[in-house]
Amino acid sequence: MAWRARVFVTPKEGILDPQGKAVEHSLHTLGYPEVTDVRIGKVVDLHLADVSRDSAQTRVREMCERLLANGVIEDFTFTIDEAS
Amino acid sequence: MAWRARVFVTPKEGILDPQGKAVEHSLHTLGYPEVTDVRIGKVVDLHLADVSRDSAQTRVREMCERLLANGVIEDFTFTIDEAS
Repeated sequence: MAWRARVFVTPKEGILDPQGKAVEHSLHTLGYPEVTDVRIGKVVDLHLADVSRDSAQTRVREMCERLLANGVIEDFTFTIDEAS
Repeated sequence: MAWRARVFVTPKEGILDPQGKAVEHSLHTLGYPEVTDVRIGKVVDLHLADVSRDSAQTRVREMCERLLANGVIEDFTFTIDEAS
């Protein structure tokens, strides 16, 4: 089975996000004063070939912990769907 | 009404993604040869205060077109949910 995984890596609550602050400021300048709490993270899309769903789950979690997210300052979540 | 919007900005198909290639290579080195097609994008979380759902939809789309995504090389999608 082949899978499409989508990983979200976002700054932990309480961690400063200067990029988010900069975007928030720009949005206010552009005329969107209703916007607050802008936080910017990464989305990593990947394709996994020839593994079971359980193995895909386990291995994607491992990839997040070992490479994709920095556990000190970032949280991660992911979804896994069958690849078409 | 207040809303939580989550915007995904990803490189368009066919556009080179060197960061994705670098991560793919690192994952192979770390022992995940089953991973291919790694693409890296941004996720922008934002909070919108005191607007209707329709207005939130329209304005978030506008923000994507004007600031959050570069239409030449990036696609965007977004979801909007009621803020708790």
